[in-house]
Amino acid sequence: MKNALYAQSGGVTAVINATACGIIQTAAAHPQAIGKVYAAKNGILGALREELIDTSLESAEAIEGLRSTPGGAFGSCRFKLKSLDDQKAEYERLIEVLKAHNIGYVFYNGGGDSADTSHKVSQIGDALGYPVQCIGVPKTIDNDLPATDNCPGFGSVAKYVAVSMMEASFDVESMAETSTKVFVMEVMGRHAGWIAAAGGLAGADPSQPPQIILFPEIPFDQEAFLARVKQSVDQSGYCSIVVSEGVRHPDGRFLADSGTRDAFGHAQLGGAAPVIAGLVKQKLGFKYHWAVLDYLQRSARHLASQTDLEQAYAMGKAAVELAVDGQNAVMPIIERVSDDPYAWKVATAQLADVANVEKMMPREFITEDGFGITEACRRYLAPLIQGEAYPAYENGLPVYTRLKNQLVDTKLPPFDI
Amino acid sequence: MKNALYAQSGGVTAVINATACGIIQTAAAHPQAIGKVYAAKNGILGALREELIDTSLESAEAIEGLRSTPGGAFGSCRFKLKSLDDQKAEYERLIEVLKAHNIGYVFYNGGGDSADTSHKVSQIGDALGYPVQCIGVPKTIDNDLPATDNCPGFGSVAKYVAVSMMEASFDVESMAETSTKVFVMEVMGRHAGWIAAAGGLAGADPSQPPQIILFPEIPFDQEAFLARVKQSVDQSGYCSIVVSEGVRHPDGRFLADSGTRDAFGHAQLGGAAPVIAGLVKQKLGFKYHWAVLDYLQRSARHLASQTDLEQAYAMGKAAVELAVDGQNAVMPIIERVSDDPYAWKVATAQLADVANVEKMMPREFITEDGFGITEACRRYLAPLIQGEAYPAYENGLPVYTRLKNQLVDTKLPPFDI
Repeated sequence: MKNALYAQSGGVTAVINATACGIIQTAAAHPQAIGKVYAAKNGILGALREELIDTSLESAEAIEGLRSTPGGAFGSCRFKLKSLDDQKAEYERLIEVLKAHNIGYVFYNGGGDSADTSHKVSQIGDALGYPVQCIGVPKTIDNDLPATDNCPGFGSVAKYVAVSMMEASFDVESMAETSTKVFVMEVMGRHAGWIAAAGGLAGADPSQPPQIILFPEIPFDQEAFLARVKQSVDQSGYCSIVVSEGVRHPDGRFLADSGTRDAFGHAQLGGAAPVIAGLVKQKLGFKYHWAVLDYLQRSARHLASQTDLEQAYAMGKAAVELAVDGQNAVMPIIERVSDDPYAWKVATAQLADVANVEKMMPREFITEDGFGITEACRRYLAPLIQGEAYPAYENGLPVYTRLKNQLVDTKLPPFDI
Repeated sequence: MKNALYAQSGGVTAVINATACGIIQTAAAHPQAIGKVYAAKNGILGALREELIDTSLESAEAIEGLRSTPGGAFGSCRFKLKSLDDQKAEYERLIEVLKAHNIGYVFYNGGGDSADTSHKVSQIGDALGYPVQCIGVPKTIDNDLPATDNCPGFGSVAKYVAVSMMEASFDVESMAETSTKVFVMEVMGRHAGWIAAAGGLAGADPSQPPQIILFPEIPFDQEAFLARVKQSVDQSGYCSIVVSEGVRHPDGRFLADSGTRDAFGHAQLGGAAPVIAGLVKQKLGFKYHWAVLDYLQRSARHLASQTDLEQAYAMGKAAVELAVDGQNAVMPIIERVSDDPYAWKVATAQLADVANVEKMMPREFITEDGFGITEACRRYLAPLIQGEAYPAYENGLPVYTRLKNQLVDTKLPPFDI
């Protein structure tokens, strides 16, 4: 019987801990195959540093509490293992750690880069002679993993972005007669416009807010944009805009990376929304407001999608079942059975097919003018925000779980990373 | 029997429509005293333009739906009536409109400026010979009205800000080892730090996030601030910061109003968060993220405080009862009976005492170092965010009400405003 190692990788989500919960609870249901589940502190770094959290020391209530706690309960990291040739010392150290703690299963929970790391780890049995089953577990708010119909973490961001746009637009519409006429809301998604597209769910048709969505896939056309803002203000009295942080000028520069200098005289990074708002003010004279959602969108567990939560848990559960089934170098994925009524099931992909492939928005999900989402896009997105998975509250605040995160005694000398 | 006029004024809130609901439903319960309730389209402007919405043409379901709809359902405006001497024509026009539609009650729903307008309107009986009962109805996210213990609209913003800070901090804490170490969240409140203070509810003690709150009441002390950020990162691995849009340099300049130039070469207004984040990066080298909540915080009906919702409704109900009772130039207010268990009741203030007075944060609500809230502040704030007043959802989105807003036929010539 072998122990298991679980690691969270990359940007966290509102439901990544639900996946952790699925893994830990399902492993406990297979005591004949899996011993302890160790969680790497701060992702793969903890594995290399031999900082392993013993999840068996947490109460059943605490583990269940992960289902409704945002962030990454064991810590995550942005650290990509390079190839075996480039970082052989790291791979050898990883094997030492796995060996020292009798770990035979690795569950690696992340996005595209993580699928690549998972794939490399899955091959160390052949390459370095230590047998390990590595199962990738999908997670990314960016929704850009291939093979899977959608990615756990995305549905909750999508819901938060759609609801926020809807609510702010009720506000702007009330005030537009004498005050703000243009509202700009910036969302994440540097490469792919999935999150921006989700903002489009706020309105049922192009007359409803958001009247404009700016996608990273569509080069920013200033003239067409300004004409559209003016048209919207003329027709509706106001204009709500979703802008992706990844929107670029036709020459490839990010709008947000615009040589802006702040009060202290240095370049200011980030902020496509203020750039867009400033442009509207300068060229059209409309009073504006802007919001930047930043981390709030991916940590808003208070408004998680029930669909997303169930899928996040299911991915963790399926990952353990794949491991128990003896598989290696695979990732559980979500397969859509039907749009309406929405039905999905768990399927399996090969990590080799998932690693290093980004799934972009299909062009046919964006309207011809580049400023909205099509019916096909709406059919794809709509099921993912269904259902409200509210956390419990106490004294007006959500009850989120903090684990004890007790480290296992180390058995190896320290390792510099 | 006289008709009533209801107007929404100034920035809207997540629960101002609940007050409207309270007024319309309570007026309907007093048919012997009050005829129709007309709502001014876009606030006082609609009254002057004779754009009156006949709320009796809305279904009972639509009126009930106002209880859970953000924004201002009849439109609001930023327009302050000056003194009778300065704007006599406007007052005379107002009387003409009231007279033409047999209106004897005016319910004016707003903040400090609106209390002033309400007071002036309440005096037109004496000054201009048209008898009207004008009742002010409190509303402001800024929580800066005097006399009342707190203001409807504030509790929901407070809850949203506290929950958002809590959630984002779970995220930052997960990532801090290799990525973001400082998270800055900007909130509203140009003059008073009530909203910023509410961010402090996210943590139970100073070791918990937010580790720093920047209040408009406390001049920005760059050295002390940076030392505190460094201390927090050293001790906790990260630092979460709430910054009020109204924070100023010791010389009085707003941090947000910092001569920043955007990509298009013109001054960029707004954004204390990016200024603070940039300072941290420049002086301490920490990776940062920042969010600007803007309208989202005051329209987030999906996370409204149940306490706030009940008080907003109660203010509308009480306003009508004061009118039926024959009163004029008054405003229903919230009187706190006890902190814990929280108990409150409706009381009455004179508009003359409310107009043009801003209630600032008491200094004893801010810790001595200027970066946090005290226990007294916590006792004051905590009850206001109690309870979750969720809206209904359909297809993953809140069910918010749009009224028909049918205008009454005009009886007067147009009036230029």
